[in-house]
Amino acid sequence: MTIVNPHFLQLRNYLFTGLAAKVAAFRAAHPDKKLISLGIGDVTHPLLPVVVTALHEAVDENASLAGFHGYGPSNGYEFLREAIVSDYKRREVTLSIDEIFVSDGTKSDISNIQELFALDSAIAVSDPTYTVYIDSNVMAGRAGAMMADGHFFNFTYMPCTRTNGFAPDYPDKSPDLVYLCNPNNPTGTVLTREQLEGWVHWAADNHCTILFDGAYEAFITQKDIPHSIYEIEGAKEVAIEFRSYSKTAGFTGLRCGYTVIPKELKIYAPDGSPADLNSLWYRRQCTRYNGCPYIVQRAAAATHTLEGRFQIREAISGYHSNADGIIEALNDIGLTTYGGINSPYIWLATPKGMSSWSFFDMLLDKAGLICTPGVGFGSCGEGYVRISAFGTREDNLEAIERLRAL
Amino acid sequence: MTIVNPHFLQLRNYLFTGLAAKVAAFRAAHPDKKLISLGIGDVTHPLLPVVVTALHEAVDENASLAGFHGYGPSNGYEFLREAIVSDYKRREVTLSIDEIFVSDGTKSDISNIQELFALDSAIAVSDPTYTVYIDSNVMAGRAGAMMADGHFFNFTYMPCTRTNGFAPDYPDKSPDLVYLCNPNNPTGTVLTREQLEGWVHWAADNHCTILFDGAYEAFITQKDIPHSIYEIEGAKEVAIEFRSYSKTAGFTGLRCGYTVIPKELKIYAPDGSPADLNSLWYRRQCTRYNGCPYIVQRAAAATHTLEGRFQIREAISGYHSNADGIIEALNDIGLTTYGGINSPYIWLATPKGMSSWSFFDMLLDKAGLICTPGVGFGSCGEGYVRISAFGTREDNLEAIERLRAL
Repeated sequence: MTIVNPHFLQLRNYLFTGLAAKVAAFRAAHPDKKLISLGIGDVTHPLLPVVVTALHEAVDENASLAGFHGYGPSNGYEFLREAIVSDYKRREVTLSIDEIFVSDGTKSDISNIQELFALDSAIAVSDPTYTVYIDSNVMAGRAGAMMADGHFFNFTYMPCTRTNGFAPDYPDKSPDLVYLCNPNNPTGTVLTREQLEGWVHWAADNHCTILFDGAYEAFITQKDIPHSIYEIEGAKEVAIEFRSYSKTAGFTGLRCGYTVIPKELKIYAPDGSPADLNSLWYRRQCTRYNGCPYIVQRAAAATHTLEGRFQIREAISGYHSNADGIIEALNDIGLTTYGGINSPYIWLATPKGMSSWSFFDMLLDKAGLICTPGVGFGSCGEGYVRISAFGTREDNLEAIERLRAL
Repeated sequence: MTIVNPHFLQLRNYLFTGLAAKVAAFRAAHPDKKLISLGIGDVTHPLLPVVVTALHEAVDENASLAGFHGYGPSNGYEFLREAIVSDYKRREVTLSIDEIFVSDGTKSDISNIQELFALDSAIAVSDPTYTVYIDSNVMAGRAGAMMADGHFFNFTYMPCTRTNGFAPDYPDKSPDLVYLCNPNNPTGTVLTREQLEGWVHWAADNHCTILFDGAYEAFITQKDIPHSIYEIEGAKEVAIEFRSYSKTAGFTGLRCGYTVIPKELKIYAPDGSPADLNSLWYRRQCTRYNGCPYIVQRAAAATHTLEGRFQIREAISGYHSNADGIIEALNDIGLTTYGGINSPYIWLATPKGMSSWSFFDMLLDKAGLICTPGVGFGSCGEGYVRISAFGTREDNLEAIERLRAL
């Protein structure tokens, strides 16, 4: 008899699915009201001109017998991995192209990476957190029972609150894997160089591996904040880094990202002998993935050119302007905000002990604005909502007016 | 301490990786010799004109603010799922669009699908087989020990030999999941309607689920061979079907495929209550996958138009002509072949008890031709090699000449 994986039955609704239902109900009840989303983290800027050109060229190339590209390497074409390595080089991080694995995006990689570790690996995540870290481990069967606060018994949760400046403290009990998202989704805050150094040393001392999600690194504006964990001495021995073109270069609909697995990474087989995670991931990708489309990889490579980097900076600066305007408006009406400086996300403290969902409902009802309830990212997100600055300029200006009128 | 998943250490080399090393060595030793690959199953026909047009249009659409598409639905855009449903309708198979899940290809889906089943699910595969069915289950920890013949203790292998016409017999011990690839990779043979009916009844009687890999369905030429398992009465209760644009429409480098999970599928929770695999897969895809690129889905939709279907038929008929020529040449020099009629693959019996690898070496040395050793697909593939008809016309004609000169 065919029996389902019982761990799938432990999953709660995917946050954005539940939210979408609420919005749909409101829309049905108020068909004439224009809703503006400050919710889900999708970009709105059209494809960059360098991307458009690269895509057209790659399509034409593949329209001819000589230029046709079929199956590509599962870990990505060398031209793209070389561009990525050069980018790291500009931050004085030296990597080789066989430490880079190109894929269809960070969501896939960061949810697949757990497959490479022993089933009884102990997991630590921030609270609030990007829920994919948790859900992928629930599916794999690492969670244990769900407790009253929505936490799973086997996971270690690291609270990120205004008390610790949304920088997680080291867990009391050492885990085998710790997920760090920096700049953080959902709080929009970043770890300083000193804090990252602390994490790298702590991971080395505790024989723990850091799964470092750097999907939002392009939004860092402060000069002294590291863009890559590998800017920290010793990080290659303890950290895997995930990067994305989604938010960086507007690839949410094109799908491309990459994962860095340094050869120096210290990881072990069950008998205690050293294991080579780089080659295990390569084996995983060759077996279960057929690579990112050639035309998309050509587009990704174009974003690494001088012109591409210029266009990225311009697009991101538009989102930063959005964030600045929203923060100003929220502060002016007396609300407290965090993040939004090195990130497209603003972490808004709800007023007077209002719950995340009550604030969500109020904002939808009164202003026709959609935000993301912080509690959806974990119990420590209760009393916050996430505001995204990814809207168009026009929508953003209107949203700001509506906020000021609250 | 971070410990790797020990099951990854059970994996053998990925077949095509080992083969590539042998070819590279030959190339280095004979730099002037032109090699022709009849090996790995990649297409060579350039992108179809309808695909080129659709890609250009979709790129231009996304270059504007109004036409930009960011995150799409994880299960695919409705326009594509509707086109797929219409295609099934032409074969008198009725599906709803929420039974279709678009993805980046069959390799991903067929290796991910096992995650949805209990870890102690019993697996049956053909021998020879597409190795991804096995390797994905090894990674998950379902294999048990490897035995002397390369088989894993926990898996049931269904021999496909000339004795049973390469149609697997029902396993003695009923498994929970059985993988069927039809038209078959690597043997190039197909199951008749009666044989498929037999499998559907057998699966219903044994409460087993069929994972039906139909990646090569577009190559079926014989009128009475079903293209979809759902052409068989009752199949929706026992079968999941996987389809691909890779071989059908030359998308090996564009990456698109889809999986059909009927709502009628009979599957159970551990307590014996019915479970809904369709919604569990949807949850899996929403959590761990962000959808196939919009531009690629537009291209895939274009292949379903009348003009698209015409262009597909033309490209595939070219591969069929290749296969006809190869079969004729091989038979003329006294070799026995199977498959190649409803498939791009020819399953060649090596002469006089020669091993697969000896024949591979001989063909490489004497004729500069690359084939795929049958034993790489399983021990029952020993004494065979797989010949692919995916080459260009020019290469194919030269390969045929070289074969005739053997």
